[in-house]
Order: sequence, then C-alpha cells, then structure tokens
Amino acid sequence: MATAKECISKGQKFAQNTQPYTVLIEGNIGSGKTTFLNYFQKYKNEVTLITEPVEKWRNVNGVNLLDKMYKDPKKWAMPFQSYVTLTLLQAHTAATDKKLKILERSIYSARYCFVENMYRNGSLEPGMYNTLQEWFKFIDEAIHVQADLIIYLRTSPEVAYERIRERARSEESCVPLKYLQELHELHEDWLIHHRRPQHCKVLVMDADLKLEDIISEYQRSETSIFDAISRGHEHKPEAVLVSPSKCYRSRP
Amino acid sequence: MATAKECISKGQKFAQNTQPYTVLIEGNIGSGKTTFLNYFQKYKNEVTLITEPVEKWRNVNGVNLLDKMYKDPKKWAMPFQSYVTLTLLQAHTAATDKKLKILERSIYSARYCFVENMYRNGSLEPGMYNTLQEWFKFIDEAIHVQADLIIYLRTSPEVAYERIRERARSEESCVPLKYLQELHELHEDWLIHHRRPQHCKVLVMDADLKLEDIISEYQRSETSIFDAISRGHEHKPEAVLVSPSKCYRSRP
Repeated sequence: MATAKECISKGQKFAQNTQPYTVLIEGNIGSGKTTFLNYFQKYKNEVTLITEPVEKWRNVNGVNLLDKMYKDPKKWAMPFQSYVTLTLLQAHTAATDKKLKILERSIYSARYCFVENMYRNGSLEPGMYNTLQEWFKFIDEAIHVQADLIIYLRTSPEVAYERIRERARSEESCVPLKYLQELHELHEDWLIHHRRPQHCKVLVMDADLKLEDIISEYQRSETSIFDAISRGHEHKPEAVLVSPSKCYRSRP
Repeated sequence: MATAKECISKGQKFAQNTQPYTVLIEGNIGSGKTTFLNYFQKYKNEVTLITEPVEKWRNVNGVNLLDKMYKDPKKWAMPFQSYVTLTLLQAHTAATDKKLKILERSIYSARYCFVENMYRNGSLEPGMYNTLQEWFKFIDEAIHVQADLIIYLRTSPEVAYERIRERARSEESCVPLKYLQELHELHEDWLIHHRRPQHCKVLVMDADLKLEDIISEYQRSETSIFDAISRGHEHKPEAVLVSPSKCYRSRP
C-alpha cells in the first residue's frame, strides 16, 4: 500500500481544481432522472447538464455494447462495465466554464450498485469483478471526481416498474421487478444506510410522487443547490474529502 | 473532441512532474529482459527496477487471471488485458526517490503489441478491443507516463523460441513459434519501422547474442543511460512530448 507521503509525491490527481460545484443525480431505473434533468434545462446557459452516456454505450466505434450486455451478460458484462466506467470518468472530468455541473449517475453508482449487482447475479465472475475493483481503487488515487451533492430520487421498486412498463424504452422491455428490487436495495445500502463510503451530502427526494407533485421537490433541490453555490462552494474540490462523519443527509 | 484549451483546463495529468529518468525494456518473450534487469541489480540503491508484474496477474485477490487467459482466451483476454494495463500504470506512476527507473515492458507494448495481437488472432472481439482502445486514449489524456529511453532487445523469433524451450517456464510451455513471429512483427512495426507513435528515443540491442557476448551490449546501454542522467535529463517529463520527427534511434 502507498503511504500518504507516497501519494503526495505522485502529484495532483487528474482534473483536480478544474471542476465546478457538482451535483450527482442518482436513483433506480424509472426513478425519474431524465425528468429531473429536463427541469434544469431552463438553466442551460449557467449549468453543464450531462445525461447518462447511454448513446456512447450503444456505439463503441460501431459496436453496441449495451445490446451485447443484455443478450449475453456472462460474456459482455465485463467489457460493458469497463466502458461505462470510462464514459463516466469522461463526464466527471469534462472541462466546463459553468459554475454548476449536474450529472446523471456517477462512477459511484456504477461501482456500488451496478457492478455489485452484476457480481451478485453471476454476470461478473470473481476475476472480472476483482479487476474492476482494482481499477476503482486506482481511479480513486489518480482521478479527481468532484461530488458536492447527491440527489437521490428514491422510489419504491414497484412504482419504478410501472413507469418502465408505461414508457417502454426498447432496451428496458425485459427488466424484471426482481432486478429493480436488487438495485433498489443497493441504492438504499449506499445512500440511506451508509454502508458505502460517503463522498458528500445526500438530499433524498420522494420520487414516488406523481409529476405534478414532484415539482415542489425539484424546487427544494433547486434552492439547495443555488444556496450552496451562492455561499461560494463552487471550485472547492476539497468538499469531496470530508470524512463520512462530517457528511449529513437531509430527509424529505 | 476536446480542444487544446479544454485539455489545459482539465489540469495536470496524474503523476506529472514526479517521475525520474525512465527506461523501458522492451522485447519479445525470450528476448532476455529478465537477464538485462538482473545486470542492473548492482545499482539497486540508485535505481528503481520494476519487473513485469506477472505475479499480480497470477493473483488478483485469489484469481489467477494469467492462467485463465491461457486456458480460455475468448472469455478472459479482455479482463486480463484490462488488468495488465492497470498494473503497468501502477508501475509507471509508482513514487520513487531514485534518479532512475527501469521498467520491464510498458503500457506501450501492451497496447501496440499484445492487445493488437489478441485482436488479430480473435481472442479479443471488436467490442472488447474498442473498449481497451478508448481506455488507452483516456489514459493518454489523464495519466503521465514517463518514458525517456526505450531499450529494444531485438531477437529473431527462432532464437527466442529456443530460449523459451530451454528455460521451460510453466505458463510458456505451449507458446508456438507462430505467436513469437507475430509478436516480433508488432515490435518491429513499432520500434523499427515507426508505424506507431514514438514517445522517446529507442536504443536497439542485438539480443540474439549469447550471454557472454551480450555484456558489451549491456555496457553500451549503461553508458547511454548514465550519460543522459548526468546531462541532467532526470525529472524532465517534457521529453515524452517530443514529436516523432525529433526522436532518433541508434542502431547497434
């Protein structure tokens, strides 16, 4: 293991001191992340909004990795998750001159929810899972991932399941309720029960609410974000370094 | 694509300005890299010597990825090469207070020779190969890989084949001559014909020579390295940024 002194002598992390106040939007499939991001479109001149890079996963120089992963997870879960990690790092480190960046999902949900679930359900064998874990450790050391606030769109798996059935996105057509329940538990373990490292504060929103009622929840997050920025939290990467005990989580 | 300005605003690369004068020892299996490194053991107080991290590949938290890759390359070539890339990055960025680092192989031979060969022989499918290539591009942007001199232990595949048969390392027991010929061509394309980006100067050594004759070749490399260091080349990462046209290659 590298000592603290050795880490320092390896220099700065990549993208250190370059990122603005950054909000991560987390939640299960069908929790309303896209609707949430659309709400912030009105600030698009002041905010860098980065949606989950699904289109990249569908076209890795002509190869649809997302499709391959759905059709043959035992073979493709590892390259797929490796590529997902890469595209999320690109989003985390993308240069911007805006004072606020909002990302749909993050390297943390990739690590704590999706990779974990693929390991538990056998899509990732131990040798593949261990390789991804070793990468996550190196990334922790080498790449700066700005994270000032996580907004957790908390849904019950049943509500998420109904929404997915209603919207009928092609690649989600066979997502079973059980899968949503597993992902829900992993999100809860991380963001509610704090069984994973806490990188920043978490704002939990009731995302079971219907569209017309959720607007007031959005406004609450809006206030929270702009208050933080106006208090001068932008360009303070050290916010990610607070210890878990210093993090707080507001409840709805 | 990120513009030059955007790249600058992403800050420093990880490990930038932390690495000493760095020599990469490259060559086919059986080219004598281990013997070469052993010759430099006498300077171990002044030199950080890092052998190819084969032991790590044999034990990724209890999983022998090297063995799996040999037994079922269609399934394991991708996780194996992903892990190889990671362990080489760990070697490239490892902190040291020595003025010289000598590495056995590098992320460049992983990329230009081994991954390329696994793609050509079908062990890596296009979706896996493309994922690794995208990672290499991101690494280029984000991680500083110090490289001041490549020493190419140039062998004919037939001599390498004979040496491998004589030493009989367990995992190499079924390496066919054809495989060595393919790897040889990829090394030649990169280091002799310059069909790959040139990151630094290349010193070509006749590694077909027998042990007793190769000592004078080693002494030549020794002089070359210590001359460079005494001219104050250590801690000058910009050396990796010279354009291909500014690189020179000495011949034996």
